[in-house]
Amino acid sequence: MNVREQSLIKHGEWRGKIETVCRVPVDSREALSLAYTPGVAEPCLAIQKDEEKSFELTRRWNTVPVITDGTAVLGLGDIGPVAGMPVMEGKCALFKAYGGVDAFPICIKSKDVDEIVNTIKLISGSFGGINLEDISAPRCFEIETRLKKELDIPVFHDDQHGTAVVMAAAVINAAKVVGKEISSLKIVINGAGAAGIAIAKYLLKFGVKELILCDKSGILCEGEPWMNPAQAQVALITNRGKIKGSLAVAMKGADVFIGVSAPRCVNKDMVKSMAEKAIVFSCANPVPEITRTEALEAGAAVVGTGSSENPNQINNVLVFPGLFRGALDVRASDINTEMMMAASRAIAESVGDKLSAEFILPYAYDKSAHDAVAKAVSQAAIKSGVAKIKA
Amino acid sequence: MNVREQSLIKHGEWRGKIETVCRVPVDSREALSLAYTPGVAEPCLAIQKDEEKSFELTRRWNTVPVITDGTAVLGLGDIGPVAGMPVMEGKCALFKAYGGVDAFPICIKSKDVDEIVNTIKLISGSFGGINLEDISAPRCFEIETRLKKELDIPVFHDDQHGTAVVMAAAVINAAKVVGKEISSLKIVINGAGAAGIAIAKYLLKFGVKELILCDKSGILCEGEPWMNPAQAQVALITNRGKIKGSLAVAMKGADVFIGVSAPRCVNKDMVKSMAEKAIVFSCANPVPEITRTEALEAGAAVVGTGSSENPNQINNVLVFPGLFRGALDVRASDINTEMMMAASRAIAESVGDKLSAEFILPYAYDKSAHDAVAKAVSQAAIKSGVAKIKA
Repeated sequence: MNVREQSLIKHGEWRGKIETVCRVPVDSREALSLAYTPGVAEPCLAIQKDEEKSFELTRRWNTVPVITDGTAVLGLGDIGPVAGMPVMEGKCALFKAYGGVDAFPICIKSKDVDEIVNTIKLISGSFGGINLEDISAPRCFEIETRLKKELDIPVFHDDQHGTAVVMAAAVINAAKVVGKEISSLKIVINGAGAAGIAIAKYLLKFGVKELILCDKSGILCEGEPWMNPAQAQVALITNRGKIKGSLAVAMKGADVFIGVSAPRCVNKDMVKSMAEKAIVFSCANPVPEITRTEALEAGAAVVGTGSSENPNQINNVLVFPGLFRGALDVRASDINTEMMMAASRAIAESVGDKLSAEFILPYAYDKSAHDAVAKAVSQAAIKSGVAKIKA
Repeated sequence: MNVREQSLIKHGEWRGKIETVCRVPVDSREALSLAYTPGVAEPCLAIQKDEEKSFELTRRWNTVPVITDGTAVLGLGDIGPVAGMPVMEGKCALFKAYGGVDAFPICIKSKDVDEIVNTIKLISGSFGGINLEDISAPRCFEIETRLKKELDIPVFHDDQHGTAVVMAAAVINAAKVVGKEISSLKIVINGAGAAGIAIAKYLLKFGVKELILCDKSGILCEGEPWMNPAQAQVALITNRGKIKGSLAVAMKGADVFIGVSAPRCVNKDMVKSMAEKAIVFSCANPVPEITRTEALEAGAAVVGTGSSENPNQINNVLVFPGLFRGALDVRASDINTEMMMAASRAIAESVGDKLSAEFILPYAYDKSAHDAVAKAVSQAAIKSGVAKIKA
């Protein structure tokens, strides 16, 4: 039986990967009068006077919904909001296990941007932060941008930024392994959707200068008529040499290939055309752009994939639990670039002296890595002025 | 220090009366591949094919949001959605402790009926049922009616029906104590808001024939110009003798007084004017319509109040945990009158041979009473044809 068949059986046995538990005594008249009526009137009135008190007197401070509209679930695509629930629930389980965050899965039965934004705003008073998940591009950009602007709690679209944060950690450590400086790297990203564009913008913050994005139609280049608005925008800050052509053209002489695209779109010759000590992150799932074996045969020095079957899994599970833990601990009003960069560096540093071509990232279930991320993120939030309290 | 001051301190110590926990192993590569990627793709696809599977493969089957807009919280009134959160969270704690239900507090930042209905519909795919809470009349009627019609999971407005269910249990047992038949009782309800109207309609189902509702302006009577639409509607099925006048007029000769109204609006003379062996349920909180002591001095045979300080607390905590447990256990598509009546009878029967004028209802924290309600409700759901599975 394969892992997917096993998983289906397990889900039927579990009947839910998370549950809610009661944290207070309610087994006597006295207990009830404190946790519920009549005592509960007093914390209600305290919050009415000062809404900030909701972070002290309820679980709001530690509670994050994992929200999807089910339009871009895993590699499955638009399977619908309810069908996305097993993924959302899985994330909630990981949020608690690795980050101590009380997460709750919410699927929204709408694909309309206004309706999704409005729904999330209307229920935001129950939460300390918002995790957006598996919402398709380009709607995800507008939804996240508007919510970040209109809410004073952190809003984070994991498919964009979680992927970018862990990818940067992988690039930092792979560069160390091959002895190259980040700022000197020529990087090619294939797949100019939500993840690819977020990775591109984010890597520029680390001082990367030569970066080219490709999509099915070829290299993103200022002026190309086939680009969507998000692609046209990122084309203004990448590919400054204005190279045009196919992915194969882009990869010639590149130090790093990052694939967040489609199965089998890269061959050995393309990897052979890259620079010495090439780094290949081939993350399409379940079938990668090029397999680890082929990439190594073609001379790549460091190879990472999206699969847990191989060394160097590029997994955003390493990001969101610690990132939200760190943000919630200091009542951050936002998850900003400084906090994400702190997370990337903390993930990279967690590997310590075990660093090698086969071990550039900690294991996803390494609690100490998540703790390190949380600590670094809290400090970055304080330093960048978005923390409302000190941890 | 009084109980409200104590409660405020406790809420600050607790920082949340519920939390989410992870129910599955996620401490290894293998565990992660079953609970999360890549295995989780399979339950997602199973739900995509058949949405009903979401009740088998996720926690949806056991999950209920406690939803408010904060407009009618306890006796505090319109304190706002976030200020209502301590009450919602308290209900969630009780849902789990007494009914094993995973409940989650959601406050909605809107008072607009369309917006509230739409928001709840859009997020309903995450839940097995919907508990509406502390939404002011008359909006609560339309919100509940529309959601019941448009959703195929149970929708229940606790302030209306939870109160009605426990009140009927109290009436059943009090009538037994004083040796009167339910169908012979002349009942007066003061307070023609959401709770009072729901109680009135519901008691009629138990065969009550003489029932009069009063509000601040006096007796509800067909044709009275001051009634709102909900009051005008209930006036068509109550007060068939078309009596007009004040509460004092209504109470003359009544067997039962039910107050869900305002402090100190009933005096001893009004109780003295009632029938022999009068039953007085004086539920305004924290100050009742008439105190237990005064009602007893005026000759009442059975007295109940909303307070846990007195015998016979009329507390809807006795209702919602078992009612939802029973509905969820059989995947009921609705919480209908048959299920509610089964709950009332189960609560009344839970008292057993301890029944007396000072003990007409089980304690709110009596787990066996909640279990009995759940069982009775499941059976009634099956019998009335709304159960999708057998318990």
